[in-house]
Amino acid sequence: MPPTRWGDPAHAGPLPEAVRDLVGLVFELSDTPAAADVAVPAPQLPAELVTGLRAVVGEEHVVLDDASRRQRTRGKSTPDLLRQRAGDLSDAPDVVVRPGDHDDVQAVLDYAQQHRIAVVPFGGGTAVTGGLVAEREGFAGVISLDLGRMRSLLALDPVSSTATLGPGLRGPEAEALLAEHGLMLGHYPQSFEFATIGGFAATRSSGQSSAGYGRFDAMVVGLRVATPQGEARLGGTSPSNASGPDLRELFLGSEGAFGVITEVTVRVRPRPAVKEYEGWQWSSFAAGADAMRTLAQSDLLPTVIRLSDENETAINLARPDAIGGEGSGGCLMIVGYEGTPAAVAAKKAAVTTALTGLGGTPLGAEPGEAWAAGRFNAPYLRDSLLDVGVLVETLETVTFWSNRERLYAAVKSALEEALGEGTMVLCHISHVYATGCSLYFTIAEAGGEDRLERWLKAKAAANDAIVAAGASITHHHAVGTDHRGWLTPEIGEVGVAVLRAVKRELDPAGILNPGVLIP
Amino acid sequence: MPPTRWGDPAHAGPLPEAVRDLVGLVFELSDTPAAADVAVPAPQLPAELVTGLRAVVGEEHVVLDDASRRQRTRGKSTPDLLRQRAGDLSDAPDVVVRPGDHDDVQAVLDYAQQHRIAVVPFGGGTAVTGGLVAEREGFAGVISLDLGRMRSLLALDPVSSTATLGPGLRGPEAEALLAEHGLMLGHYPQSFEFATIGGFAATRSSGQSSAGYGRFDAMVVGLRVATPQGEARLGGTSPSNASGPDLRELFLGSEGAFGVITEVTVRVRPRPAVKEYEGWQWSSFAAGADAMRTLAQSDLLPTVIRLSDENETAINLARPDAIGGEGSGGCLMIVGYEGTPAAVAAKKAAVTTALTGLGGTPLGAEPGEAWAAGRFNAPYLRDSLLDVGVLVETLETVTFWSNRERLYAAVKSALEEALGEGTMVLCHISHVYATGCSLYFTIAEAGGEDRLERWLKAKAAANDAIVAAGASITHHHAVGTDHRGWLTPEIGEVGVAVLRAVKRELDPAGILNPGVLIP
Repeated sequence: MPPTRWGDPAHAGPLPEAVRDLVGLVFELSDTPAAADVAVPAPQLPAELVTGLRAVVGEEHVVLDDASRRQRTRGKSTPDLLRQRAGDLSDAPDVVVRPGDHDDVQAVLDYAQQHRIAVVPFGGGTAVTGGLVAEREGFAGVISLDLGRMRSLLALDPVSSTATLGPGLRGPEAEALLAEHGLMLGHYPQSFEFATIGGFAATRSSGQSSAGYGRFDAMVVGLRVATPQGEARLGGTSPSNASGPDLRELFLGSEGAFGVITEVTVRVRPRPAVKEYEGWQWSSFAAGADAMRTLAQSDLLPTVIRLSDENETAINLARPDAIGGEGSGGCLMIVGYEGTPAAVAAKKAAVTTALTGLGGTPLGAEPGEAWAAGRFNAPYLRDSLLDVGVLVETLETVTFWSNRERLYAAVKSALEEALGEGTMVLCHISHVYATGCSLYFTIAEAGGEDRLERWLKAKAAANDAIVAAGASITHHHAVGTDHRGWLTPEIGEVGVAVLRAVKRELDPAGILNPGVLIP
Repeated sequence: MPPTRWGDPAHAGPLPEAVRDLVGLVFELSDTPAAADVAVPAPQLPAELVTGLRAVVGEEHVVLDDASRRQRTRGKSTPDLLRQRAGDLSDAPDVVVRPGDHDDVQAVLDYAQQHRIAVVPFGGGTAVTGGLVAEREGFAGVISLDLGRMRSLLALDPVSSTATLGPGLRGPEAEALLAEHGLMLGHYPQSFEFATIGGFAATRSSGQSSAGYGRFDAMVVGLRVATPQGEARLGGTSPSNASGPDLRELFLGSEGAFGVITEVTVRVRPRPAVKEYEGWQWSSFAAGADAMRTLAQSDLLPTVIRLSDENETAINLARPDAIGGEGSGGCLMIVGYEGTPAAVAAKKAAVTTALTGLGGTPLGAEPGEAWAAGRFNAPYLRDSLLDVGVLVETLETVTFWSNRERLYAAVKSALEEALGEGTMVLCHISHVYATGCSLYFTIAEAGGEDRLERWLKAKAAANDAIVAAGASITHHHAVGTDHRGWLTPEIGEVGVAVLRAVKRELDPAGILNPGVLIP
C-alpha cells in the first residue's frame, strides 16, 4: 500500500466528476496534491542490536530501507495522512522485522525484552486511532513487527466449523484459503482488502455483515499469543465454558499491549449460495433506527443492515431524485440477505413483513447492489478529496437504543460547532444489537492551512461529547493512542488498574506497543 | 432451603414407587435416612470484629445463630450433602452478614480488608463445585456475605430491552419482577428456583433455554462490582465496543475472587406468547448429536434442545415402551419453541424439515410437556435416592464437535472404571454451539461405607479424562475449589499468571473467597 494513500493504486484516482460536482456545491475546491515522498529519519537502533535481530529471525527478515520503514509509519487516519503529506515521518520505526511463525515472534519478544526495544505489531497498516505510533523514550529503538509472512491456513476442522488462521492474512487472502473448502469467515470491514486477521482480533474489528455473522471478536474461538512471559493459548478447549473469566476477551482488543497474536481460530461457515441486497426508504433517521431496533429485539436480523441519516442519504446517492425527489427528507436503508435459498427466502419474507409494517418503503435491488459494489471504496474517495483540499474523516461510537438520539445530536453539534460553517456531518448506523447500535459519522470540511489542528480539536470535542453522553469512545476502531485520553471515564479507575496490572505481569519491561490503549 | 436437602420441602419426599422399582432393578436398596442436624462449630470471629461489622451494616444484619450458619455451610454437591449427613460442619462460616445495597457491600469489604476477614459471597447456596468453602488460614474469621436483601429491580430500560437486577434475586423472583412489565430473562438452569442473579454471573451459569436465549454471560450487558480497591462499573456504555479488552468477561466467572457483583444489567425480552415442547427419536446418540450440530451450524436452533444418550433415555422415561419398544436403542431429543406465534411457526417448520431430513422421528408433544413439567426436579430425586443409599452425582464438560465422541467415551469409561460394577452412567447434551456442545453426565451407584471417598476418586478420574481429551473442566458449574486443580492445563501458566495478577491488584489482602478459582 503506498504510504500516503489508501489501498491499491489501480483503484485510486482523481475524484470522479460526479462527486467533484457534488462536493463543489458545498465547498470551494483547491488542488492540493499529496506531498512528494519525504526523507525517513535514519534508524536509531544500534548496529549490534540489528545484528542480534538478524541472528534471531534470519538476515533477510530484518529490513531497514527507507521505503519499508516509510510504509510502516503510522496508520491511515486522516491525521496520519496529513502528517505524512506535511513531510513528518518522525514516527518511522527503526527496523522492520518479519517473523515467520510463532516461535520467531516469541524469540523476537525475548530479544527485545532483554535489550529494551519497543515492538509494534504490524498487520495491514490500516489503523485509524494511532495504534502504530510507539513511544520511543526509554527504548533502544522501535521494531515494526510485520506479520506479513504468517499467512497460512494453519488448521481446519470442518466438523466443528473452525479454522486456525495466521495473523498476517489479509481479509481476501483468508477468504480465498477458506473458499477452497467451500467455507468463509464473513468479516467485511471497510478495510477488508488490506487489514489482517491479527489486526481484526487485536482491535475488535466489526464488519459490514455484523448483523448476520457477528463482530470479529464474536467469531473468535481461540487465540495463540506470544508474550514476554511466554505463550498463552486461550479458548482451545471449547466454544464457551465456566472455567473462570474468559481470558480470550482480555487479549481481544489488547492492541499488541499484552502480547502478539500469532494464531486466530475462528468459526467458519458454508459460503452462501444466495446474496441479495436491497434498499428501503424511511421517512426519517429515527423511523429507520426504530425499525432496526425492532428487528434486533425480535432476533430477526438480516445479514447486512445499515441506515444513512438524511445528510448521508442525500450526498452518498448523489441522486436527489432517487428517494422520492429533492427535499423528501428520506433515509436510505440497505438490507442484505446471504445464505441458502431457503434460509434467505424465509428471512427475507419475515423481514419484509416487519419492515413494511413499520412504515418502510421497499426500493428494490438497485440501491442494494450499488452499495455492495462500492462497499470498500470510501477510503479511496477520501484520498481524492484530500487532493482537492477537502478533509474527510470518520469517527464512530456505540450506545444503547434509548440513548441514540441524544448521542447523535450531541456528537453532531460538537463537530459542527468545532469546525464551523461549511462542514458536512453525515451519519449512518451499520452495527445493531438487541440493546443498542453504533453511530458512524463522516465529516467533510473545506479545511485550510491549519487542517490538522482544526480536526484534532474537533475530534476532541466529539470525544468529549461521546463521554458526556455516556457512550463508548469507539465501536470498532480501537483505542490506540488517539482515544487513550478518553478511556478512563469509560472503564473507570478500577478498570484501568486491571489493565495496568495485566500489562505489568505480561510485559514487565513495557516493550509491547508502548503508549497504546492503557491510560 | 433445608441444609442437607435440595430446595422446597413441599416438593421433596420419598422416592416415587415407579422410580424406586426402576432403581431397584439395578441396585440393592437400603434405607439410610439423612443424619439429624448436627452441631455447628462455635464462631471463631473475635467479638470486637462482630461488633465492628454490626456498626457497618446494622445490628440486625449480622447473624451468628447455628441455623443461619448451618444453612450457609458449603453448597449442594453430593460431597457437600454427604459431609453434612456425616456430621461434618467444619466449613461453617463464623458470621452471616447481610448487606442492603452496593455501599453496604463496599463498606463490609473495606472493613474485612482492614481486619483480614475472609468474605464468601452467598446467593442461593446451590454451588456444586466447592465455591462456598473459604480457606480459613491466615484470617480472623469467615463472613458469609448473604446478598439476599439485594433483591430489587433497580432499573428498567424498555427501549433498550435492558434491566438492572439485584444480585440476591432468585430466578423466579427476577422473572416475577420482569413479568410485571411483560418481560422476561429466560435463564432456566436446574437450580433456577433457588440460585441467584449474582451467582449466575459469578459462575457463568447456563440454562435449559440456552439455545434460544443464550448462556447467562451472554445475557449480561453490564456489571457493577465492589472490590477492595473500590467500585468497578463495566459495560455501562454500550452493548459491545472496541474500547480495549472486555473487562465484563473478567468478572463473569470470577466466583467472588475479584469482587462482589452488586448489580447485573441483562438483556430482557418480551414474554413468549407460545411455548411448545416436543419429543424426537434418534437411532443413536451420535445421530442425534449430528442433527444438533447441523441445526447450530445453520443458525437454526430452537429455544430448547437436549438429547439423552441411550442409557438416559431408557432410565429417565421409565417407560421402555415409549420409544419403539424395549431394546430399541433409541435416544430421546426434547425440542422447545418459544416466541410469537409467527416466529414459533416459522422456526418449527424449518427445524421440523431439517430434523426429518436428518432421520429423526417426531414423537409429538407428550414427551416435551413431560420434560417441561419436571425440568427442575432432578435435585429432589437425588436426595430421595441418597435416602435409600444410592449416590447420584452429575458432572459436565464441553468441547468442539469433532472431539465429542472421544470425550464421551473417555469420561464414561473413566467413571465406570473408577466406580466399578453396578454403576450407571447417563449422559445428555443440553447446550449446543456452532462449534461444539456440552456433555452432562449423571452417575448413580449403590455406594457403600466409603461413598464420599469413592466418589471423589471417580470425579478426579473423570477430570483427568476431560483434561486428557482436551476439553474444558466445566461448561457451567464453575471452578470453585473442586476444579481448581485442573484449571492450569486449560488456561496455561500465562493464563494463571494473569488471574493472579488481577487478584493481587484488586484484592491485595486476599480476603475474597480465598481458595476458589485461582490455582
